[in-house]
Amino acid sequence: MSHSRLLDLLLSQPGQYVSGEEISRKLSISRTAVWKQINKLREEGYEFDAVSRKGYRLISKPERLEYSGLLQAMNTKSFGRKLKLLEVTTSTQEEVRLLAELGAAEGTLVIAEEQTIGRGRQGRRWHSPAGKGVWMSLLLRPPLPLTRAPQLTLLSAVAVCRAIRAVTGVEVGIKWPNDLLVHGRKICGILLESIGEDEMIRYCIAGVGIDANLEPSDLPPELRTIATSLQIESGRKVDRVVLIGAVIAELEKFYELYLEEGFAPIGHLWEALSVTTGQDITVKTAQGEVRGRAMGLDENGGLLVMQEDHRLTTIFSGEVQIDGCNP
Amino acid sequence: MSHSRLLDLLLSQPGQYVSGEEISRKLSISRTAVWKQINKLREEGYEFDAVSRKGYRLISKPERLEYSGLLQAMNTKSFGRKLKLLEVTTSTQEEVRLLAELGAAEGTLVIAEEQTIGRGRQGRRWHSPAGKGVWMSLLLRPPLPLTRAPQLTLLSAVAVCRAIRAVTGVEVGIKWPNDLLVHGRKICGILLESIGEDEMIRYCIAGVGIDANLEPSDLPPELRTIATSLQIESGRKVDRVVLIGAVIAELEKFYELYLEEGFAPIGHLWEALSVTTGQDITVKTAQGEVRGRAMGLDENGGLLVMQEDHRLTTIFSGEVQIDGCNP
Repeated sequence: MSHSRLLDLLLSQPGQYVSGEEISRKLSISRTAVWKQINKLREEGYEFDAVSRKGYRLISKPERLEYSGLLQAMNTKSFGRKLKLLEVTTSTQEEVRLLAELGAAEGTLVIAEEQTIGRGRQGRRWHSPAGKGVWMSLLLRPPLPLTRAPQLTLLSAVAVCRAIRAVTGVEVGIKWPNDLLVHGRKICGILLESIGEDEMIRYCIAGVGIDANLEPSDLPPELRTIATSLQIESGRKVDRVVLIGAVIAELEKFYELYLEEGFAPIGHLWEALSVTTGQDITVKTAQGEVRGRAMGLDENGGLLVMQEDHRLTTIFSGEVQIDGCNP
Repeated sequence: MSHSRLLDLLLSQPGQYVSGEEISRKLSISRTAVWKQINKLREEGYEFDAVSRKGYRLISKPERLEYSGLLQAMNTKSFGRKLKLLEVTTSTQEEVRLLAELGAAEGTLVIAEEQTIGRGRQGRRWHSPAGKGVWMSLLLRPPLPLTRAPQLTLLSAVAVCRAIRAVTGVEVGIKWPNDLLVHGRKICGILLESIGEDEMIRYCIAGVGIDANLEPSDLPPELRTIATSLQIESGRKVDRVVLIGAVIAELEKFYELYLEEGFAPIGHLWEALSVTTGQDITVKTAQGEVRGRAMGLDENGGLLVMQEDHRLTTIFSGEVQIDGCNP
């Protein structure tokens, strides 16, 4: 949070307009400097009312994630109860990886207000501006063979999708394996990194990036046609603390269900939330492109595709493009 | 290599005995200090003949891995041609991991004369004394789904087993999934670390630790009944450079075969080299112990076990104990 003297001055007169002249005089700075500082604070999420001849009035402060508030929002047994909250980091995935190598417990969570090198799938960057989204990573240590790790990718999508729907009412759907879309635009990315040792999982890191309170101007031009945010879609700001609490609780709930009952119930929930199933799609795989209609999941979580010659293929990895959609 | 003045003195009179008294006088050190330095050099792999009244004679210097010699030994297309040779490191796995994150190419190889924190399965240490073994890690970037990674574990075991047999004639066998044994004692450990992203492999690191020229005294007491070395088993030193070249060439050959033809041929070779198949075994898994007779591999590389009630189970992960064997 910015501790400028200008901010202190406005905070000392709550609800009141303070003229630019008064600010200029009390802080011994030029009128131009006042205007520059106001703009800088606006970029940080402060909102001002500016009326000519009256001056500036502080309307709202940026919503900040607070450690104690986040802990209170964790309605969980263990997930998120070991929490590291950062103002800025390169990538919450890297933060959790370091903690994992030092022996951190399952459920350890790292949240950052801003990521400078947020990671997406296949080496892509994930745009993670300060204070606008939910950028976090959760450590899992499932006692499972490595072959099961891709199912956790689908599990994460189910949990985050359900939490977003419950908190915001926005009709988010899942594109295989784990992109969350609204009206064909990406609103959340999930990245499940798995660290395996021979045939076993050593640990997994579930990275979640939710475009919560981004405004259209927060999206770089190249993302404007393919990405959106909960605020853009719902027309109002989402309480990030409530959203984080809901996401972590759903992740814990479905992780426990999965360890107890296996993939079947997760698979059914995934299919119920899927925007891929029934669509004509093109999948880019390492072996080339596959075109056809997405038919759902096989019992392991692979994507069943009915090709044009009516052969049924299972896709284990690749990038899905829903025909007629952007992301 | 130790650059002691004592060594220079012996090297300046090749094949000659130099008396302790002469050494003591020329280096202005005590006779006790001479004796201590000789012992220190012996620990580093120098061999001396010590005859009373005649003195010390240098018989042999420790075999050293040389960068150019190693590159010449790489009879491969790409594997091992990007090589980092280290005197000492914590773990060659960590070295390759750093290089991988910086974008190193497939086939990048790190070899160390000594590892201070060599890694084995399940967080165990791998004893890696200086100059005595083959401690190395190879970077793979297979364009495969993560579910296939455990097959690379079995592939690595096949490649290393065949190379050791070809170079030394020692009848090494594979214990599921990838321990190499001779007469029930461990002679080589393989650790395949996989870094996955969602359903895809980002990269794998094949770590190979071969107990090449360890003498019984090089093994700590707790390992003496469960581990052995190629030198102990064959009665002679193995040329590590030749062995490394053979291992890397076999890894490249079978990796290419696997990418072209899939797991079937690798599975058949694994079974031909297995010391697990046909044995009564106990497998410790995350879900508890499984006892029965090992029947071979299923088509994905899982271990088929016929339990006492004649039910056939597939083991995807766990620690195998061959009944009546130590490791």
